[in-house]
Amino acid sequence: MSRTWIVNAALPVHYQVRVVDGVFNPTNRALLEAGATQRTGTIRRLVVLDAEVERLYGVQLRHYLQHHGVKYQIISLPISETEKTMDSVFAVVKGINEFGISRRHEPIIAIGGGVLMDIVGLAASLYRRSTPYVRVPTTLIGLVDAGVGVKTGVNHSAHKNRLGTYFPARDTLLDRGFLKTVDTRHIVNGLAEILKIALIKDRTLFELLERHGTTLITERLQGRTPESNRAATQVIERAITGMLEELEMNLWEHKLERVVDYGHSFSPTIEMLALPELLHGEAVNIDMALTTLISAQRGMITPEERDRIFTLMRKLELPVYHRTCEPAVLVDALADTVRHRDGLQRLPLAIGIGSACFVNDVTPDEMTAAATALREMDASSGSAPMWEAAHA
Amino acid sequence: MSRTWIVNAALPVHYQVRVVDGVFNPTNRALLEAGATQRTGTIRRLVVLDAEVERLYGVQLRHYLQHHGVKYQIISLPISETEKTMDSVFAVVKGINEFGISRRHEPIIAIGGGVLMDIVGLAASLYRRSTPYVRVPTTLIGLVDAGVGVKTGVNHSAHKNRLGTYFPARDTLLDRGFLKTVDTRHIVNGLAEILKIALIKDRTLFELLERHGTTLITERLQGRTPESNRAATQVIERAITGMLEELEMNLWEHKLERVVDYGHSFSPTIEMLALPELLHGEAVNIDMALTTLISAQRGMITPEERDRIFTLMRKLELPVYHRTCEPAVLVDALADTVRHRDGLQRLPLAIGIGSACFVNDVTPDEMTAAATALREMDASSGSAPMWEAAHA
Ligand SMILES: NC(=O)c1ccc[n+]([C@@H]2O[C@H](COP(=O)([O-])OP(=O)(O)OC[C@H]3O[C@@H](n4cnc5c(N)ncnc54)[C@H](O)[C@@H]3O)[C@@H](O)[C@H]2O)c1
Ligand SMILES: NC(=O)c1ccc[n+]([C@@H]2O[C@H](COP(=O)([O-])OP(=O)(O)OC[C@H]3O[C@@H](n4cnc5c(N)ncnc54)[C@H](O)[C@@H]3O)[C@@H](O)[C@H]2O)c1
Repeated sequence: MSRTWIVNAALPVHYQVRVVDGVFNPTNRALLEAGATQRTGTIRRLVVLDAEVERLYGVQLRHYLQHHGVKYQIISLPISETEKTMDSVFAVVKGINEFGISRRHEPIIAIGGGVLMDIVGLAASLYRRSTPYVRVPTTLIGLVDAGVGVKTGVNHSAHKNRLGTYFPARDTLLDRGFLKTVDTRHIVNGLAEILKIALIKDRTLFELLERHGTTLITERLQGRTPESNRAATQVIERAITGMLEELEMNLWEHKLERVVDYGHSFSPTIEMLALPELLHGEAVNIDMALTTLISAQRGMITPEERDRIFTLMRKLELPVYHRTCEPAVLVDALADTVRHRDGLQRLPLAIGIGSACFVNDVTPDEMTAAATALREMDASSGSAPMWEAAHA
Repeated sequence: MSRTWIVNAALPVHYQVRVVDGVFNPTNRALLEAGATQRTGTIRRLVVLDAEVERLYGVQLRHYLQHHGVKYQIISLPISETEKTMDSVFAVVKGINEFGISRRHEPIIAIGGGVLMDIVGLAASLYRRSTPYVRVPTTLIGLVDAGVGVKTGVNHSAHKNRLGTYFPARDTLLDRGFLKTVDTRHIVNGLAEILKIALIKDRTLFELLERHGTTLITERLQGRTPESNRAATQVIERAITGMLEELEMNLWEHKLERVVDYGHSFSPTIEMLALPELLHGEAVNIDMALTTLISAQRGMITPEERDRIFTLMRKLELPVYHRTCEPAVLVDALADTVRHRDGLQRLPLAIGIGSACFVNDVTPDEMTAAATALREMDASSGSAPMWEAAHA
């Protein structure tokens, strides 16, 4: 015998992400129809909710479902980064088993932030090897990042997103009205991922954040004036468009040089070590602060651009340092990222404001210098950053 | 705001399955090179083994790896259908974390039967959202079925393969020399899946099984004579070719009418209920016996063809009944399968020998009649099947 069989196939992937105001407004059929093939008879839906979102919006949601005669079951999960585990995935699976959904035409509806959507996405992906689902993000990270891509995942044995899949939701409904109830810290957390897109590819977005950042935070992107409404719309749309441009070409990460990995080289380790002290976007921002300094050390960013970036970070109330940022930790973090990137650093570094490149030769000395500068900046926070002092 | 973003992409999938004799022969570089992109430097491999396979072949494997200077780690898992759980997946994940493989160029090697490959495939699929792996099946089910497709999975909360993914191994090496040490019951178990392909699409394969079945079993498909060698080669190759013809067109099961689901409509429930009494192929055969009778009741199979099928099943020493096959159980089993097939039975039924169709209207009465006939046949086993007695 010496036979070889070759199998060639392609999995087509189509999904949509769309803006829908008033998702729970009974006159709005979007949620009812999202991700569903036309069927007659009773509509059945399993809805998985962030417990905090249930507390705030559960009455509206139930009213909506009852209004449309939907036979539904709600599963409510306590949400936090520490609950982002396979056990939470199993809780969703148990709910699916009990409700007994059909394989294709009864999409699971996930309503919550990035953690809830990542958990439900993984459960849907694994259940019968794939069960359709729909996402309704309720946080800013959810709206501009976790809700638009195809990655699912949970943390495992102290590693961030160690287990997961690539599995798109059929449909994602973006309603920024949910941000009304999100606290300032989580709004800011989402702005960090928007700042990432600005830094690597969208100078206009950076300038929008400079001009409107403070208002966006105080108004929670609700747009109380025509001007701030236009700014909120533009900021969200530019962030999503920028993100999807990068993702669509490389949905399964076959190319490991990803500009959207900016801020995600050291942060997975920092976030897990600092848990629950740092939020995802906060850890990402610390990573961006670190790599901004590395870029500046290499002359890829001018001192003026560096200061402008740190000024915006401060304006957005984002942290630039955490005590876990020891040189030894950063070296370990980068080593794990190198394994993740198949043996090379492939580290995205900003060039000026609005573009990026990849390097493979960042040294421990460079990381130490950057971390030291950030620690000193943090210690003297309130006053001028240390390099200004040094150059004064 | 009323924007919609549409994402369109396609995941290309290429993999190969090939016959390689003497996988652990040091002069054979296939296992060394399988699934790997060319790299210089030390070869590192994590090998996950069925503990029984390690006991039988561990010395050969280590000798092979050492001969080629491979830096390796072996994880040995106790294997049985009851151990086909997420906990076993976590054991593999722990091993990957500890060994610390690179994301792309150090494929995990899975060596064992269907259970081991399904577990490792799921772990590889989840780890960093996909890590390449290579399969070396060591059972007959592994060689002709579990080792050639793209499904991974584990049992969960008493449901067969409830959690899993579609994730191809880059390369699968088929060495039927492993069957030397497989016991008769597990050889027969694999013949059930081969019989499935024969019944739904390959009359020649059916005739090969009729003519050589007994020899295939006693010789464990090792081909002690030129004739039996030719028969073993043909049987394995026809089974794989038939299977891959069906899979390649429908790798992600977008079409839910799958002839290869023949024997897999009632058996998932029967297998789990009877656990650990029935093997996978045995449960599949009971399902095929049941549906053969339903086909015969509907006149889709002649009495002669029905008898010929049962004669072959008996010759292959395959069970046709188990006491869990109560009518109520069968009704429940079909209901779960209907959910799995999105609301319709889509039940493959044989038409004569070598072809099949799908029906959506099997009634509880038909199942009861078939189950009753099988029970009586089982009770009087050794003597003539009950329908012959009834018509005598
Ligand atoms: N899959 C991806 O592509 C992707 C992308 C970016 C981030 N993520 C993941 O997303 C997670 C972070 O997401 P997050 O910031 O949304 O965190 P989160 O899901 O933990 O939500 C933050 C907090 O806000 C609460 N909350 C949610 N909606 C609310 C609302 N409308 N009003 C009031 N409170 C509300 C939650 O209960 C939680 O306490 C991280 O685990 C990160 O890894 C995933
Ligand atoms: N993924 C798929 O497409 C697919 C297809 C068919 C079956 N399956 C799954 O495969 C499983 C059945 O596979 P299986 O029959 O190989 O069972 P198995 O993996 O449990 O192996 C059967 C027994 O043989 C032992 N064994 C393995 N290799 C041996 C060797 N060379 N010599 C001696 N003993 C050996 C094992 O330790 C085990 O005790 C089921 O869980 C089924 O769901 C999966």
